[in-house]
Amino acid sequence: MTTRPVLIAGAWRAAGATGSFTAMNPALGEMLPDLYPISDWADCEAALEAAAAAAAALRSSPPEPRALFLEAVARRIEARKDELVEMAHAETGLPKAPRLAEVELPRTTGQLRQGAAAARDGSWALPTIDTKLNIRSLLAPIGPVLVFGPNNFPFAFNSVAGGDFVAAIAAGNPVIAKANSSHPGTTRLLAEEAFAAVAEAGLPPASVQLLYRTSHEHGERLVADARTGATGYTGSRAAGLKLKAAADAAGRPIYLELSAVNPVVILPGALAERGKALVDEFVASSLMGTGQFCTNPSLVLLLAGDATEEFVGSVKGRFEAASPTPLLSPAVGKALASSVETLQSAGAQLVTGGAPASGAGCRYSNTLLRVSGAEFLKSREKLQTEAFGNASLFVVAKDDGELAAALRHLEGNLTGAFYSDTRGSDDALYGRLEPLLRPRVGRLLNDKMPTGVAVSAAMNHGGPYPSTGHPGFTAVGIPAALRRFAMLQCFDNVRPERLPPVLRDQPPHERVVRFVDGEWRRGALQ
Amino acid sequence: MTTRPVLIAGAWRAAGATGSFTAMNPALGEMLPDLYPISDWADCEAALEAAAAAAAALRSSPPEPRALFLEAVARRIEARKDELVEMAHAETGLPKAPRLAEVELPRTTGQLRQGAAAARDGSWALPTIDTKLNIRSLLAPIGPVLVFGPNNFPFAFNSVAGGDFVAAIAAGNPVIAKANSSHPGTTRLLAEEAFAAVAEAGLPPASVQLLYRTSHEHGERLVADARTGATGYTGSRAAGLKLKAAADAAGRPIYLELSAVNPVVILPGALAERGKALVDEFVASSLMGTGQFCTNPSLVLLLAGDATEEFVGSVKGRFEAASPTPLLSPAVGKALASSVETLQSAGAQLVTGGAPASGAGCRYSNTLLRVSGAEFLKSREKLQTEAFGNASLFVVAKDDGELAAALRHLEGNLTGAFYSDTRGSDDALYGRLEPLLRPRVGRLLNDKMPTGVAVSAAMNHGGPYPSTGHPGFTAVGIPAALRRFAMLQCFDNVRPERLPPVLRDQPPHERVVRFVDGEWRRGALQ
Repeated sequence: MTTRPVLIAGAWRAAGATGSFTAMNPALGEMLPDLYPISDWADCEAALEAAAAAAAALRSSPPEPRALFLEAVARRIEARKDELVEMAHAETGLPKAPRLAEVELPRTTGQLRQGAAAARDGSWALPTIDTKLNIRSLLAPIGPVLVFGPNNFPFAFNSVAGGDFVAAIAAGNPVIAKANSSHPGTTRLLAEEAFAAVAEAGLPPASVQLLYRTSHEHGERLVADARTGATGYTGSRAAGLKLKAAADAAGRPIYLELSAVNPVVILPGALAERGKALVDEFVASSLMGTGQFCTNPSLVLLLAGDATEEFVGSVKGRFEAASPTPLLSPAVGKALASSVETLQSAGAQLVTGGAPASGAGCRYSNTLLRVSGAEFLKSREKLQTEAFGNASLFVVAKDDGELAAALRHLEGNLTGAFYSDTRGSDDALYGRLEPLLRPRVGRLLNDKMPTGVAVSAAMNHGGPYPSTGHPGFTAVGIPAALRRFAMLQCFDNVRPERLPPVLRDQPPHERVVRFVDGEWRRGALQ
Repeated sequence: MTTRPVLIAGAWRAAGATGSFTAMNPALGEMLPDLYPISDWADCEAALEAAAAAAAALRSSPPEPRALFLEAVARRIEARKDELVEMAHAETGLPKAPRLAEVELPRTTGQLRQGAAAARDGSWALPTIDTKLNIRSLLAPIGPVLVFGPNNFPFAFNSVAGGDFVAAIAAGNPVIAKANSSHPGTTRLLAEEAFAAVAEAGLPPASVQLLYRTSHEHGERLVADARTGATGYTGSRAAGLKLKAAADAAGRPIYLELSAVNPVVILPGALAERGKALVDEFVASSLMGTGQFCTNPSLVLLLAGDATEEFVGSVKGRFEAASPTPLLSPAVGKALASSVETLQSAGAQLVTGGAPASGAGCRYSNTLLRVSGAEFLKSREKLQTEAFGNASLFVVAKDDGELAAALRHLEGNLTGAFYSDTRGSDDALYGRLEPLLRPRVGRLLNDKMPTGVAVSAAMNHGGPYPSTGHPGFTAVGIPAALRRFAMLQCFDNVRPERLPPVLRDQPPHERVVRFVDGEWRRGALQ
């Protein structure tokens, strides 16, 4: 059996491989047939060199070919939809429908088209003009972007064609994609389409490159290399923090989307008013995708009382009644079991689950744990361990003060939610607790579970450390996500014909919005 | 003699001091009378704790008191102008007029008033609303901001009342200022006015705190502390990179403005067309403030030839004719001498200067060095050593190719400039060289020296590493500078009355501009 080629410098070619790996069908527990290479440093070096040249070419190009490219990728994904869904299903065990075919794939093509529109428009770059001093600035491409995609979204966050890829290309940068090892085949198919689209749109051939895997050491060298403009990483905290340390030491920007437990605070009035509905909402959000979402509600905070006991009992029943769906890989199953053990060793009691489950492939029982507010405060670091998968921890505080103390000790998270009643009985408590939770989360929700990250200009899929590496940026949402992959470039007294078109008195098109002498406006300068 | 008190938690109080220091009048070489404390960790701890409480109070406050505060500081600085100028002159040796009284002080009060206007307006936070999905977001205060000010701008970049201070407060954060040890008295006077303005505007008392100095270890603990929202640092590369490492490891944002040599490329047509005028321009920019600007043109790149030899000869003459003005401190003099030695040891030849100069206080002769393009390429790291002060290095390349190679190996810089002729003979060469320099600098200039950093919305006082820690941010320019001290906060389905006022359907005032459903606009939602 031959090892699949990598995509470097405009050609599919044999990798300089130090080894190879195969993916698994986690729903069946069977290895898949294809062999993928672990690239050596020579592959990385070749990719960096080609990316640097592509970056230089892209910098001086208009946005139209990039927009056409992103649209072509979307169209090609739709044309190859059945094969892509089949492959992603085989590699992840995620349901073909609705999840892969009807939700994630259209989300992915939607992101690609939104990215194309943003590139074409140009307003994302916040072009700014001071006519009096003749100083002009904009956000310009930062250079080659490395993308490390996660295991849980084979399309929408894929290092080829996913959110970071779209943002990097739309902002004018080439991408070096590192496939997630759990779905190399899906990534390969996406890269085949992306590479065909590169040719179709006339982009520099190395605008998209793909390595399937490297050693950890080479990953750290890649993010720290002087030719790397920036890195986008979504994945485990441990691996992400190693890359962050390497990038930070070299002064290379890196954007990370790491772990989160996504605290959900259910206030007593809400429980009294609509406890049954909240059970439905929580169970659906918690078990969706076998709990394998960055925004899974893994930590629920409640006040002690009969209603809470009833809520816990109902969730327990529903967790037990639902058949566990497959996990993404044996590694995910192992990490989940280990996290549940950590939570238990820190004082959490098992309400249900906590063991491997029967059925084909990798499955773990739907798991619910609980702990008192006092115990939580005592072992608060360990009890914020992310159990990635179908497990949640309920913290039952004895009173408002203990609940407030728990919020005060939460780590940075992607999201945080409050459920409160509609008649106002929770309002005073909300008013006291909200200021404690708000600065600790990127997205605050009311009466809504955190799963479901809309691709909206107002979205924040980010948050304070350690949920990400910097609280000012979002990985989802256009145009904001593009601004991660940009550097601020100022032009001071630069002659008109030498300015980027979007900064000239007469912009290249009427649609672009610029910040001119303190006002956002369209059209030519007077 | 008593040691001056520090400003912590709303009171001037005796420091928990591990030692003390005095400042020097560098123009006279005499120690100044006041004794300032080196704070222990208990002082730092108290400041952090008070700042965290102030941050919580500020977060829920409207912007008006912050705007009034910034305006009050400006007014109070003007009222105490003579004393401030006298003190800053004594501590820095910078001329009272025009520099301190007529340029830097008005710049400082101008920044304060621009910050007030930005805070009051609210548009800086890029409030974004998706009405269809009811998702809203904005940039919100990041929490207590530590400011480490540099030695070279006792007013405009002072950790109290300078640019980072304005940006942090305008964005809604309290400031813990660390005085620059070379001008503690100026910082004290500014802090007295700022603290009086805190009371006047009704801000939380710990909105402004001042420590004069800490150990390096405690500085690193401060930037890494979980209560610290972010740090703004302007100063030497060595100290800055230590703080960066500490902050990075803890996941706390830090914005650094470090060293730069600010390459200036003089193309042959420009030299032929207006060589004499270029000598004037270069000498004025190079020796201004004894060369102690972050944007000093310390590296000039030229093509070999008679015109270049004439240019070098003229600059040499002018450097020798000008009396060296005082340096900011003996430490600056020592570092300058050491950097000039490093440049010489790497192959640079001394054209003139290179030794301590006569006159009162700390002075160093106006220094010009030169090196061939080939030598520069050979020892390119060492030859990019910043010689902070009145010294510049000319790189004379033998041809276009060598010039291009030199640009290709430049580190990240704050600025880069091209001089070209007005008749077009340099245009082709400009076209080949500009793409090499552009991505390596934050601000690109044409026919203009880099000193003089206008406080403009279009300014970028930032650049790629190692000139700063991240190429996406600017330290000068409002509103962009405010966005460094902010976190992205999203509100998903949050009830209307619980939203920050600026995100409500009816904004608090008509002036604020919001990004609503893809359009920048004013006024209430329909």
